[in-house]
Amino acid sequence: MPVNLPLLEHFHSVPGIKIGTYNAGIKQTERPDLVIFELDEGSSTAGIFTTNAFCAAPVQICKQHLAEENTRYLVVNTGNANAGTGKEGYADAMAICEALANEKGVPVNSVLPFSTGVIGERLPLEKIVSNISNACEDLNEGNWFEGSRGIMTTDTQPKGYTAQFEFEGQMITVSGMSKGAGMIMPNMATMLCYIATDAPVQQDILQKLCTELGDKSFNRVTVDGDTSTNDSCILMASGKANVAAITSESSELYGALKHELEKAFLYLAQAIVRDGEGATKFVAIDVQNCENSQEALRIAYTVAHSPLVKTALFASDANWGRILAAVGRSGVKHMDLDKIQIYLDDVCIVENGARAASYTEESGSAVMAQSELTIRIDMGRGDCNETVWTTDLSHEYVTINAEYRT
Amino acid sequence: MPVNLPLLEHFHSVPGIKIGTYNAGIKQTERPDLVIFELDEGSSTAGIFTTNAFCAAPVQICKQHLAEENTRYLVVNTGNANAGTGKEGYADAMAICEALANEKGVPVNSVLPFSTGVIGERLPLEKIVSNISNACEDLNEGNWFEGSRGIMTTDTQPKGYTAQFEFEGQMITVSGMSKGAGMIMPNMATMLCYIATDAPVQQDILQKLCTELGDKSFNRVTVDGDTSTNDSCILMASGKANVAAITSESSELYGALKHELEKAFLYLAQAIVRDGEGATKFVAIDVQNCENSQEALRIAYTVAHSPLVKTALFASDANWGRILAAVGRSGVKHMDLDKIQIYLDDVCIVENGARAASYTEESGSAVMAQSELTIRIDMGRGDCNETVWTTDLSHEYVTINAEYRT
Repeated sequence: MPVNLPLLEHFHSVPGIKIGTYNAGIKQTERPDLVIFELDEGSSTAGIFTTNAFCAAPVQICKQHLAEENTRYLVVNTGNANAGTGKEGYADAMAICEALANEKGVPVNSVLPFSTGVIGERLPLEKIVSNISNACEDLNEGNWFEGSRGIMTTDTQPKGYTAQFEFEGQMITVSGMSKGAGMIMPNMATMLCYIATDAPVQQDILQKLCTELGDKSFNRVTVDGDTSTNDSCILMASGKANVAAITSESSELYGALKHELEKAFLYLAQAIVRDGEGATKFVAIDVQNCENSQEALRIAYTVAHSPLVKTALFASDANWGRILAAVGRSGVKHMDLDKIQIYLDDVCIVENGARAASYTEESGSAVMAQSELTIRIDMGRGDCNETVWTTDLSHEYVTINAEYRT
Repeated sequence: MPVNLPLLEHFHSVPGIKIGTYNAGIKQTERPDLVIFELDEGSSTAGIFTTNAFCAAPVQICKQHLAEENTRYLVVNTGNANAGTGKEGYADAMAICEALANEKGVPVNSVLPFSTGVIGERLPLEKIVSNISNACEDLNEGNWFEGSRGIMTTDTQPKGYTAQFEFEGQMITVSGMSKGAGMIMPNMATMLCYIATDAPVQQDILQKLCTELGDKSFNRVTVDGDTSTNDSCILMASGKANVAAITSESSELYGALKHELEKAFLYLAQAIVRDGEGATKFVAIDVQNCENSQEALRIAYTVAHSPLVKTALFASDANWGRILAAVGRSGVKHMDLDKIQIYLDDVCIVENGARAASYTEESGSAVMAQSELTIRIDMGRGDCNETVWTTDLSHEYVTINAEYRT
């Protein structure tokens, strides 16, 4: 059960973007496991990808194709990540692009491939290639919900976001879907995300938006500190809305669209944490008043990844000593223990190098019992703030990950 | 149940070192929770301590007293770490030193205090101070086993090492004890270790030995990546053996003693991992042929701390993709995937950027089913090797750490 994540069944469709799904039998599931996006001619596409040095074959191809050609198709399979598969894996991913390009009569580098699932096994290529035409037959602007189901792996529910806003009398749509539940860590996660708008946006501006918004959302969520080899986040702009194209950051529509996209990125990134493997809590780690962003993130991730903090969260135990010890081992130089204040929501638990005088177990436990809370760490040494979002570490996490392949 | 850790009940006593224990009622246990070491006059003492920025009050005092005066007494309490306790905690630790110094008529800075247990609670000072004379009455050279029981916290069994070697017709003894089971991470652990020899060693040489041997043992073990605020490792040399004192590293005895101490440090550090919280496996992560030690350790710790690798170990699942993904996210620059080979013991699982051609699930699973194994990662880019030791991540780890305070 994800933590406070409502199921989105009805998306606003995005004019100019069609989605087709098919159950190709890649894995034993009732859900579709093959998803294709079709972008009308004239669309812009931007992407950000995993920083794992061993990025999977499809990620390598995505980067290359994005740089070479306007994207017309995305093709996603679940069940197999096509990672750690060497030269054969690269050839497999290219064969999928070629099959779709031939089906549709477009250049091969206008296709972006995505794979998610088990690492290190060859793709069941024949199952994918032979079912591309079936998925293409299903292409339809109304298929967002089926698409959000089709990209799931260990997710317990599909993750979607949809919104509309008015600009100069025109309704503009932002819809998106994401998947991922484990191996979630900044830069990025076993995480796929597809966000589309019908606003017209020049490609370089779209890429800048994608990078900037991805950095503050997908690169700020962590479940287990493991960064996948396949993470990809794609932002598409079909340009079908009847407004002037965004060609500069000073345009009025740019500001309005960025505001809406920011909400979409954050919602879809946080949705992954809410559905984190075994998660029973959704926790913001809010590190304030640091000298710079780097040290704030270092502290935030050290706390977010501490197994002792995470198990205390699972137990709803206000064990502030574990939080303080994690801050202490973060490696940030010259910390002054006496200046640090730590809060659970609004309850101060640490000040002056020790438990806060006003603190009671009762007040701390009340916050820890909540399904959502903020651990706020005020370092008192600057004016830079950073927030990351994470989960607890439960028995269920161990069960899921000790049994995933079997 | 620790992984292959025999119980040591009979230690060789170390002439010149006495141990006294007492159950002071600090925690509800049948074991002693107060342990005192008495060092004869003329002993040398060296120590290494946690790098956590918020080291506990006793650690601060240990460092200061070691620098000021020859050590005559160590006093250890379990049940309470006296960490995150601010100025009051410092005063409490000093009060314990003073009580023991008064009891024995020695300077206060010849006493080193140690505390381990829950963080952030004030010490039950009265229970400790009022029972110091009881522990002193018990002082005896034959008390090593009781001492090793007395320093335990969540340990499932006491950890000891004892050995003798002959030098110029004299028998020289090395005995030691360690404790710790969670919050174990290089630099160092919720880890206490006391090793003593009757060899005579000049203080500066003893300190150098302690630093060097501690770095290759206690600073190479990790259970959960959390570094405690209280870690301390003390090396004592009573000088009672009838041989010439070691005053230089070129002495013959120095070489022989270092060799014996190396075994003691490594055994006692690995014992902590073998008894790691919830451990079902003892795993060496052996990273070979790196450009330098720093990158070898970075890779080793990334793999050792990966929850996905650790849960795969727990499940005896030869999920080499998770190992490869962890190497990939270690942050080491310019890795060449094609040069990397990964082995489980002698079974090659990864080569040429993919699963090894010779690999079979059967051969990998056979190694993973063992209670001890080595994950060997050959980076093929230099000649520097490093090894760290760790455990799997089991349900029992979550249970222990979700319930520790309750």
